[in-house]
Amino acid sequence: TSSGVFLLQMGWGDLGAFGEPSKETPNLDQMAAEGMLFLDFYTANPLCSPSRAALLTGRLPVRNGFYTTNGHARNAYTPQDIVGGIPDSELLLPELLKKAGYVNKIIGKWHLGHRPQFHPLKHGFDEWFGSPNCHFGPYDNRERPNIPLYRDWDMIGRYYEDFKIDLKTGESNLTQLYLQEALDFISKQQASQQPFFLYWAIDATHAPVYASKQFLGTSQRGLYGDAVREIDDSIGKILSRLQQLGISENTFVFFTSDNGAALISAPTQGGSNGPFLCGKQTTFEGGMREPAIAWWPGHIPAGGVSHQLGSVMDLFSTSLSLAGLQPPSDRQIDGIDLLPVILQGKLIDRPIFYYRGNELMAVRAGLYKAHYWTWSNSWEEHSKGIDFCPGQSVSGVTTHTQEEHTYLPLLFHLGRDPGEKYPLSFASEEYQRAVERISALVQQHKATLVPGQPQLNVCDQAVMNWSPPGCEKLGKCLKTPESDPKKCSWPH
Amino acid sequence: TSSGVFLLQMGWGDLGAFGEPSKETPNLDQMAAEGMLFLDFYTANPLCSPSRAALLTGRLPVRNGFYTTNGHARNAYTPQDIVGGIPDSELLLPELLKKAGYVNKIIGKWHLGHRPQFHPLKHGFDEWFGSPNCHFGPYDNRERPNIPLYRDWDMIGRYYEDFKIDLKTGESNLTQLYLQEALDFISKQQASQQPFFLYWAIDATHAPVYASKQFLGTSQRGLYGDAVREIDDSIGKILSRLQQLGISENTFVFFTSDNGAALISAPTQGGSNGPFLCGKQTTFEGGMREPAIAWWPGHIPAGGVSHQLGSVMDLFSTSLSLAGLQPPSDRQIDGIDLLPVILQGKLIDRPIFYYRGNELMAVRAGLYKAHYWTWSNSWEEHSKGIDFCPGQSVSGVTTHTQEEHTYLPLLFHLGRDPGEKYPLSFASEEYQRAVERISALVQQHKATLVPGQPQLNVCDQAVMNWSPPGCEKLGKCLKTPESDPKKCSWPH
Repeated sequence: TSSGVFLLQMGWGDLGAFGEPSKETPNLDQMAAEGMLFLDFYTANPLCSPSRAALLTGRLPVRNGFYTTNGHARNAYTPQDIVGGIPDSELLLPELLKKAGYVNKIIGKWHLGHRPQFHPLKHGFDEWFGSPNCHFGPYDNRERPNIPLYRDWDMIGRYYEDFKIDLKTGESNLTQLYLQEALDFISKQQASQQPFFLYWAIDATHAPVYASKQFLGTSQRGLYGDAVREIDDSIGKILSRLQQLGISENTFVFFTSDNGAALISAPTQGGSNGPFLCGKQTTFEGGMREPAIAWWPGHIPAGGVSHQLGSVMDLFSTSLSLAGLQPPSDRQIDGIDLLPVILQGKLIDRPIFYYRGNELMAVRAGLYKAHYWTWSNSWEEHSKGIDFCPGQSVSGVTTHTQEEHTYLPLLFHLGRDPGEKYPLSFASEEYQRAVERISALVQQHKATLVPGQPQLNVCDQAVMNWSPPGCEKLGKCLKTPESDPKKCSWPH
Repeated sequence: TSSGVFLLQMGWGDLGAFGEPSKETPNLDQMAAEGMLFLDFYTANPLCSPSRAALLTGRLPVRNGFYTTNGHARNAYTPQDIVGGIPDSELLLPELLKKAGYVNKIIGKWHLGHRPQFHPLKHGFDEWFGSPNCHFGPYDNRERPNIPLYRDWDMIGRYYEDFKIDLKTGESNLTQLYLQEALDFISKQQASQQPFFLYWAIDATHAPVYASKQFLGTSQRGLYGDAVREIDDSIGKILSRLQQLGISENTFVFFTSDNGAALISAPTQGGSNGPFLCGKQTTFEGGMREPAIAWWPGHIPAGGVSHQLGSVMDLFSTSLSLAGLQPPSDRQIDGIDLLPVILQGKLIDRPIFYYRGNELMAVRAGLYKAHYWTWSNSWEEHSKGIDFCPGQSVSGVTTHTQEEHTYLPLLFHLGRDPGEKYPLSFASEEYQRAVERISALVQQHKATLVPGQPQLNVCDQAVMNWSPPGCEKLGKCLKTPESDPKKCSWPH
């Protein structure tokens, strides 16, 4: 059975099936109607790189190294001056799937480090079409180079130079390129009866948001909605291709997101987290609870709904299981195999851990969520207009100072209070019972935790994408400045 | 064609089909899948009585008299000391449907005045099982009598005495009684091949929230969710009955709500308005945008979705149209016939007016909403813990003083910004264009407006439910105190 994972930046509330009021995602809604909706599904981190590392390793960022210790409870990712990346010691899903004869392709944003040793083709992927970092820019190629796009080993151009994004109109045909890559890859594998793993990790809904000309202005929601509509349309085309080729019953497909909607970019460049609190960068539900759909015609009963507490890390274990492989036994794997959930409707008892850097901010078990630390962002950042919770303010919860609640966690019942507005009374029996249970889980988790070497501490202008492999063939190599390693600055 | 209207207090975000994360409304979701979802549907007022009067008259509360002038921009309703009620001059939907031979029944909360002249059977209904006011209480029957329940002309008992609601456990079998009434009524009309209008206006999701024993504790959402589940189950049974009797293709059914979720009662007694701002009592989207589903197998294409700006007042015009009747031509009717929308997918250009009392607070046209006045509630009320926007605070929008914006309305684009967080720049061309258009609509509306005699100004302890008709047969008549009419107090 082949596997496909669609990983995007979208909020829980961005799909029609999840209550977005414009209801402009007919293909994803149809995918949900034919498959299974996961309503309690989480990413592994409120930021993209660590979540992607977690998906591909099946392990929490604090284990696989995708975190920083430069400050307390700071989110970190892989900008192009980051020195670190995915350690060789980590076993990635495609590396393992190779043993079962899979061909593996990543289309879109890798984000697990851009220096040569971190290249996706060194970590199990056979093919790559996409970029190592976010499509920020345009840059001047002096202070900072434009981000390259790769085909397999070599760069084939740079954003804004060879792959246009018009920041004024939001026009770019990148999603169409990524779609075509996916369709071609699938058709090729089907023709050679080859099991495959396709990781479609495109970035049109990440600021700067973009869409192709034919989608511009088509959404009620503005440019962000145009991008969503194009992605929705593309996913419809990919699923149709699987069906046309007669391999939909042999292909497990999963759609989800790497972090909550970036409310800081809303409304034009950011999505919706529905009824949940705050967004990307936070460990409130809006930061980590994600839309999620499993699709596998003939296997998953149509119109299914699951309240299984799920995680992007489960896609690691589930994909291995589909390939008939065991997860590595020499390390802690945080993902679980979701097949019993999907195929037999089981509910597996497991907690969700919400981290910021190496600090365990919150834990969900069942319908209870305990916050051990609360923080949105600092007053200093907030006063500059950086707001992860626009229009929302819950006293004592969305705090602008880091508040420790270790000895008396803030407890919410996410069934009665999905918006995390009404902490339970410390004196209640319900509080005592739930916190006792969660504390035991935390103790167990911390006692066995072996943190990885933090990869996101050091930045250096010399490691930026000055001269990616292949640049010489294109005449696109730039002069590398002197090395000047320093602690990366992670303000939130 | 018979008509059925389910009218409840629920928020836009309370149904699975509208993105409620517990997804516990399988029957309503199924109703939507078989029918048409209205995503841009509104009630006529952020409070129950005026909305109900508007539904049954097809006219805005400011026309039909269901408003107060005791203070500026105040919400008012019909507590049991209200002197006013639905004027005889108003023509109610059941009165008109009678001309086409319909039998009309109201089950549940009437709320259009409880004094004898306002009795539903004096205004076109043939049958009634329910109460004239909210099921508040218990009262001591000295200072204030318990609210009666009626069967047709006479009271048959009182809440808390004869019709139990256990405020501790939330247990009450009232919804089951209301369900049985509906099933019996439908079966009886079918047996005599009688066209009917059933108005099922039950109140289990209005505080004090209640549910039957078999539903208590069954929801992830607590007692409120239990009540929703029981209503969902009941609606499923009513629709099934229509199908079993073979009359589903001759019965137009509509589900909606009379105001947004009462966030002030959340989380245990109040629902969810999904991604929208604030709740009941306000003219933000959370106060007036409602879940809405039209169902008419064989006529409405299954799985339809409409962005028609709709209103509860449209149920008046649509039901008349279904009965082959014309709306009265001697008065302004605000409702429109939705059949072209439902059957032919048309979109009718019309504004939505958001009133508080006799003040036009806001107007929606297309995707734009202009606020002419903003107010959540007063600082004084807010400091007492009365909060219509818990956890939400949008600077300059959710104001605690009444802010006038008549000359420079606050403008939102509800497609890009459904949560009303980002007012458009006054200087933008988009602002100018939209406000110009909306201003013309406002001018036209105000120029032709003939306000009705305000019914909700005077309260008097003597008019309370001391001795409703039929009390003598039950020995339930109470001593009526002396008349002491005063201005009702409407603090928000």
